[in-house]
Amino acid sequence: MKTILVLGAGKSAGALIDYLGNYVDSQCFKLIVADPNIKIATQKIASFTNSQALPFDVKDKDALHSLVNQADVVVSMLPAFLHPLVLETCIFLGKDMLTASYATAEIKKYESQVIEKGITVLMECGLDPGIDHFSALEIIERIKNKGGIITSFKSFCGGLVAPENDTNPWHYKFSWNPRNVILAGQGTAQYLDAGNIKYIPYQQLFNSAQQFDLGEMGVFEGYANRDSLSYLPIYDLPQIETFVRGTLRGEGYCKAWHLLVKLGLTDDSFIIPSSIKTWKQLISAFTPTKSNDLQQEVADYLNISMNNEAFQKLVWLGIFNDETLTLSNVSPAAHLQALLEQKWKLEVGDKDRIIMIHEFEYLLNNQKHTLRASLDVIGEDENLTAMAKTVGLPLAKATELVLTKQWNKPGIHLPLDKKLYEPITQFIESKGIKFVES
Amino acid sequence: MKTILVLGAGKSAGALIDYLGNYVDSQCFKLIVADPNIKIATQKIASFTNSQALPFDVKDKDALHSLVNQADVVVSMLPAFLHPLVLETCIFLGKDMLTASYATAEIKKYESQVIEKGITVLMECGLDPGIDHFSALEIIERIKNKGGIITSFKSFCGGLVAPENDTNPWHYKFSWNPRNVILAGQGTAQYLDAGNIKYIPYQQLFNSAQQFDLGEMGVFEGYANRDSLSYLPIYDLPQIETFVRGTLRGEGYCKAWHLLVKLGLTDDSFIIPSSIKTWKQLISAFTPTKSNDLQQEVADYLNISMNNEAFQKLVWLGIFNDETLTLSNVSPAAHLQALLEQKWKLEVGDKDRIIMIHEFEYLLNNQKHTLRASLDVIGEDENLTAMAKTVGLPLAKATELVLTKQWNKPGIHLPLDKKLYEPITQFIESKGIKFVES
Repeated sequence: MKTILVLGAGKSAGALIDYLGNYVDSQCFKLIVADPNIKIATQKIASFTNSQALPFDVKDKDALHSLVNQADVVVSMLPAFLHPLVLETCIFLGKDMLTASYATAEIKKYESQVIEKGITVLMECGLDPGIDHFSALEIIERIKNKGGIITSFKSFCGGLVAPENDTNPWHYKFSWNPRNVILAGQGTAQYLDAGNIKYIPYQQLFNSAQQFDLGEMGVFEGYANRDSLSYLPIYDLPQIETFVRGTLRGEGYCKAWHLLVKLGLTDDSFIIPSSIKTWKQLISAFTPTKSNDLQQEVADYLNISMNNEAFQKLVWLGIFNDETLTLSNVSPAAHLQALLEQKWKLEVGDKDRIIMIHEFEYLLNNQKHTLRASLDVIGEDENLTAMAKTVGLPLAKATELVLTKQWNKPGIHLPLDKKLYEPITQFIESKGIKFVES
Repeated sequence: MKTILVLGAGKSAGALIDYLGNYVDSQCFKLIVADPNIKIATQKIASFTNSQALPFDVKDKDALHSLVNQADVVVSMLPAFLHPLVLETCIFLGKDMLTASYATAEIKKYESQVIEKGITVLMECGLDPGIDHFSALEIIERIKNKGGIITSFKSFCGGLVAPENDTNPWHYKFSWNPRNVILAGQGTAQYLDAGNIKYIPYQQLFNSAQQFDLGEMGVFEGYANRDSLSYLPIYDLPQIETFVRGTLRGEGYCKAWHLLVKLGLTDDSFIIPSSIKTWKQLISAFTPTKSNDLQQEVADYLNISMNNEAFQKLVWLGIFNDETLTLSNVSPAAHLQALLEQKWKLEVGDKDRIIMIHEFEYLLNNQKHTLRASLDVIGEDENLTAMAKTVGLPLAKATELVLTKQWNKPGIHLPLDKKLYEPITQFIESKGIKFVES
């Protein structure tokens, strides 16, 4: 009997656990779901027979060792900074491992150990990174096969909110880890534009967003993500001139977020003392001048009109009010997160929305062609989210393929191998995750 | 016979070595000056009898051990990140140690080991930090003794260029470690203003500089330094409402530097590939749009007029020209440093200038009083700088006091003890380092 271990049963693990729970019942295999919050783990496996929920303390290395030791394959849905620890344990015990997180430089350091041990480690097999990779590869191969030469590839993805539940001026509600949204873009974005490398520092990133008019789907905006250049080798596009990967947000989000960055509220590097008790006091502390009208003062400091829509989005958040901070002795970023978790909550019945677009330009018979592929997935409710589905289903199918040795390759991989991603694509399309091309 | 070891013989070590070289000759003691560049060390001790120059490789722990072992007291003029290593060696061998660098959290971690070993460690005993501390304490004590209650204390210091050699539009030339100038202000500045804590993030810091009109001395501007709040306890000012420590620059420097920050050129976190060969290409990479007129494009991107003085300071640097980058495979900050080391060089015969001001407000007999103390020191030439003098002489005198046990106190200290700083003040005043009050 084979055993799958899923570490972490949080927001984006629902669809993954649902698929694997049914799968192990059908195969008489076993699923263990371990989470620091045993209640959440227990709820998630309630309808399955061969699944077990276990508590899990990330600080307890022995407990991790004993959990991994029971499994044939480990799926980590833990926060990304914990993956090296899980990977070390998997290497030590010789277990395959899968995640939906980035194959960071820190993860890649383990490559030789992974190969020596002969285990399969699959990273970036969720939505973004994940579906973005193999959906793009499939199109790239098609264009190349008919003799096309790709000169431009822009890929943007966003976890948003369904139009009917888009009830706030930011056009955003949380469908995944809020902390990642707060800290997004820190560092310098790097991409390729018309043959030239471009760098956008954090302090300019959200002020440099690009508009995407997606017709009936709506108007969105996108900012460049991290280091796009590092992905160029995997797509093998020798004549590429423009290449950028980025994040999609609703119209107006980026200009307003830029103001929060400019104020310094996304800083996670120091602690606000408990003497600062209200939002008004906190915003006042981030404003060097002093007048009787905080809103006017902040608008002047940020060099923006109080009537500007971006500024009005800050007003809507209530940061100029006397409301008490809910946390104490945390960073500015943590205070902001706590506020946004209230303001940008997916309410009961709210549906989220995933949009991914690939925009290609290519030359065929000396003529310029364009191709846009778009994915638009609406969630079922605040629990059965499009985010959980699009992250979890590719990972679930990949887990099945690795567990049953239908796909097996010692090393640390991204889902770039046709033998891996073709069955995954077929599977997720059957679940409604399907690109439309124009 | 007692032995003093000076580690590092760079730019700001000249006055220190001169004083200690003479001192050891007069006392029949010994001075060892160790530097990775043995030539520089040899030059610096050429006119002394009891001094020895030795090579020194910071990576060679055994060599460091053997150097420290020959000394009774160690003065580290090395870059600050090396101080923990030197301190560990001093603790192990039971040697006293002095530096002109900040007593960082990392250094403070060694406090219990230092006390256990019974050694004296004196940090922040140069100019800023250094003279700023004890010159302020002397004034504070005087105001308190006559019954005054201090409500405001602003302390700003800058290493600048003498008026007669102020030949560039930035009003700045390097008299100390250029890297520190390039990376200055990264992190969030914290200070107290009219009873309220204030935070200024890096992306706003140089845009929020305050003007200082110092009468005959000239007009300057200052930006807040690091965490001023952490210094409040050492000054013991229970009724203080405004407290800020900062850096002085010439008029117009900060607005122009803000543009470099906004562009992203002070980023030290990633490497520019060698395919980018000229300044024009580098600036183009940091500008997301594309036109035929790079200057206009950058001005638009930075939301500033090309005629603006701040923008013209960028033009003066030559960053829009086809000049070749002198380094390769380094960070944007390192490229900027290499350029500025050419453009902001103290030329032969150039004199630097140190300005430090303390501005106090205090209540005495229910009346508000103000006091400004200013220090204005001009260097002799590009080698005998005011910077080297004001950093080196307090440290040299402190070294003498520690070596001869005239001042001795197990623990990690700042120069806050009257018994230490009174003889230092007397000494540096005799060398022309003297505050004027108004």
